[in-house]
Amino acid sequence: MSSETQTSHSPAIDSRRLLADLKALARIGATAAGGVSRPAYSDADIAAREAVRDLMRDAGLEVRVDAGGNTFGSMRGRMDAPPIVIGSHTDTVPDGGRFDGALGVLAAMEVARTLRDRGETITHPLEVVDFQNEEGGLIGSKIVSGRFTADALSLVATSGRTIGDGIRRLGGDPEHLERAVRRPGSIAAYVELHIEQGMIIERAGAQIGVVEGLVAIRYWDVTFEGVASHAGTTAMTDRRDALLAAARFVDAVNTVVTSTPGRHVGTVGKLAVFPGGANVIPGKVVLTLELRDQFDDVIETLFERIEREAKRVANGTGTRVTMIPTLRNAPSPTDPRVREAVARAAEDLGLKTHAMVSGAGHDAQNMAAIGPAGMVFVPSVNGISHSPAEQTEDQDVINGANVLLGAVLRLDATL
Amino acid sequence: MSSETQTSHSPAIDSRRLLADLKALARIGATAAGGVSRPAYSDADIAAREAVRDLMRDAGLEVRVDAGGNTFGSMRGRMDAPPIVIGSHTDTVPDGGRFDGALGVLAAMEVARTLRDRGETITHPLEVVDFQNEEGGLIGSKIVSGRFTADALSLVATSGRTIGDGIRRLGGDPEHLERAVRRPGSIAAYVELHIEQGMIIERAGAQIGVVEGLVAIRYWDVTFEGVASHAGTTAMTDRRDALLAAARFVDAVNTVVTSTPGRHVGTVGKLAVFPGGANVIPGKVVLTLELRDQFDDVIETLFERIEREAKRVANGTGTRVTMIPTLRNAPSPTDPRVREAVARAAEDLGLKTHAMVSGAGHDAQNMAAIGPAGMVFVPSVNGISHSPAEQTEDQDVINGANVLLGAVLRLDATL
Repeated sequence: MSSETQTSHSPAIDSRRLLADLKALARIGATAAGGVSRPAYSDADIAAREAVRDLMRDAGLEVRVDAGGNTFGSMRGRMDAPPIVIGSHTDTVPDGGRFDGALGVLAAMEVARTLRDRGETITHPLEVVDFQNEEGGLIGSKIVSGRFTADALSLVATSGRTIGDGIRRLGGDPEHLERAVRRPGSIAAYVELHIEQGMIIERAGAQIGVVEGLVAIRYWDVTFEGVASHAGTTAMTDRRDALLAAARFVDAVNTVVTSTPGRHVGTVGKLAVFPGGANVIPGKVVLTLELRDQFDDVIETLFERIEREAKRVANGTGTRVTMIPTLRNAPSPTDPRVREAVARAAEDLGLKTHAMVSGAGHDAQNMAAIGPAGMVFVPSVNGISHSPAEQTEDQDVINGANVLLGAVLRLDATL
Repeated sequence: MSSETQTSHSPAIDSRRLLADLKALARIGATAAGGVSRPAYSDADIAAREAVRDLMRDAGLEVRVDAGGNTFGSMRGRMDAPPIVIGSHTDTVPDGGRFDGALGVLAAMEVARTLRDRGETITHPLEVVDFQNEEGGLIGSKIVSGRFTADALSLVATSGRTIGDGIRRLGGDPEHLERAVRRPGSIAAYVELHIEQGMIIERAGAQIGVVEGLVAIRYWDVTFEGVASHAGTTAMTDRRDALLAAARFVDAVNTVVTSTPGRHVGTVGKLAVFPGGANVIPGKVVLTLELRDQFDDVIETLFERIEREAKRVANGTGTRVTMIPTLRNAPSPTDPRVREAVARAAEDLGLKTHAMVSGAGHDAQNMAAIGPAGMVFVPSVNGISHSPAEQTEDQDVINGANVLLGAVLRLDATL
């Protein structure tokens, strides 16, 4: 138990309650493989948000759903000041894990409950947030930070529903998203606890990651077009096989990314073959390319090399290639005051910290546009995430929630 | 018109009537793209078979549907001998073309009508056949040749119906398929006219392909298993990316197949990525491997080399690979007497022939189990098939039907 490592003046969250909440939420959308499927706007996503609102109400928080479909639970402060906002998201990728997002929301809930149980009112109001559709492009926090453009309402999310329909399902109002926008300066701070989803903290021999910044992310839709034809009657030399082209492209992406020194990553995660019959030479392949790095110009250089490879592959296979950019997230540094609060809170608990860059995008990068934002990371076993095998040890869950609590108290005192 | 190239003693089919029949049948299941969709057991498939039976009745043939759902139209011969059977199929792949199958059935009809119009009775009875579900695995001819096993009745065809339900829809009796089986020796010959679906005849500067045999075909389901993980937080060196493995495998299949001299082909036509999110490293990829050659041992050698490459790829990517055989069709030579009859019939018409192997499977390979079987091929424009762009020139349609007629007369005289 975390209490063993705490000095007498540190408040501590109720670890048993938090672990029980995590277990209960993981039942909503649970998969046979031991994971969780709660794609944004699915029935399971809606049910999980209702469960979070129940927890908020039980804790005496004032609950509201904003026009963007995000859930907020508020606690008054001693002063009528801008609030400290803590939270994350409860939507998941299809067949995802139990911690990605859920930990940040439930730990934030637990922080609010701990303060209430101690009869302690902090200076700033406190808000617990459950952002919508984080996995589909940080949609909820984009709306709150004013970075969302209405033309994206018609995009189809993983659950098969458009973002507009999804927001309506969540109780939001897609026709009046401006009502959900919060102006710069309107929050005192945003702090998000999240699993690391990598192996950096563990390899550094630390327990807590203090996030210095979030990487830039860019997506492209890549299409190879050849000619669909009969697999039995078309000689090898007559083929214009779009899948052969796509295969060489996937290999080339890996070669470019791994042969360039640095911590950037490049991924092809989605690939569809048309017409897709075992006895038909593929005429078209559509795939996604994703590149991430701390610096925009590194991504630019990688992409230029990959684009050259794509053209070379297309020439060699008699196919045509098009690469259309679909997403561009700028790199996002965190606020030094939040970093300091997180690091000091961890030290108070005797935990070793490691300063690091987040390879994943998080709602914190949008919240940084409206106030000082930062993140607390806890280790992921074997770095596995977006998978039923996603795991974070109980002690790390408890450490993370206690650091979040400590950081909130420090920010409340210093901001 | 073909009559210009014919010597006076050659009978000739009515080319205008045949072209009109082809046009009329192509309206049943016509697609906006200019093709035809008549997947086995669909409403369009049933309607086309009814249209064929109407043509048979108009021509004075005796019509029956066997227990396997195949349509036959019979004409008596001068002797009570085993019949000469001619025909093909009228089902198509989804979004297929106007000639694949339909040409063989309608040309056979036209041959029967020509004989009737000339008041000529041949020695052997003549049967025109429209086999069912050729595209889904030569099902109708498998039943007739006794190669169909009842456990396949529950397999679901492209139209969404099981083969059993489909046979019932066609007027067959899936509980008594043995009634449709014909014993070896029970037919005098089987001759099938079909479009080539490749470019071999055209490249040889010929008009008629004389099919020496049909290739062996083998299918495997290939699965690469890695670890699904977060695309932003998993370093390149920590990845076990199933799609990277599959991509290298697809390229290796192409390298093995094209670097081995011969006319074999190898195709990966179907590939699915799991979980399939743009920001998730693929944990599993399932794909199909198809190999075709005239000789079984060539396929065996190719497969052994591909299997070695698959293991090498799996080792290099930290993934596991499994390869499960799912289909095995033996090579099928045609009968030399039928080849001779086809070649001589073409020569009589002044047409240049080219001896060739069929890369596609056809009902003729099943009929070869019960009697001398062979095929007449006519050119496909640009080799395109299984596509709305499938095309065969009028003159080649007419040539093919006249060669079929000539071959029937020769076989009738010599068998």
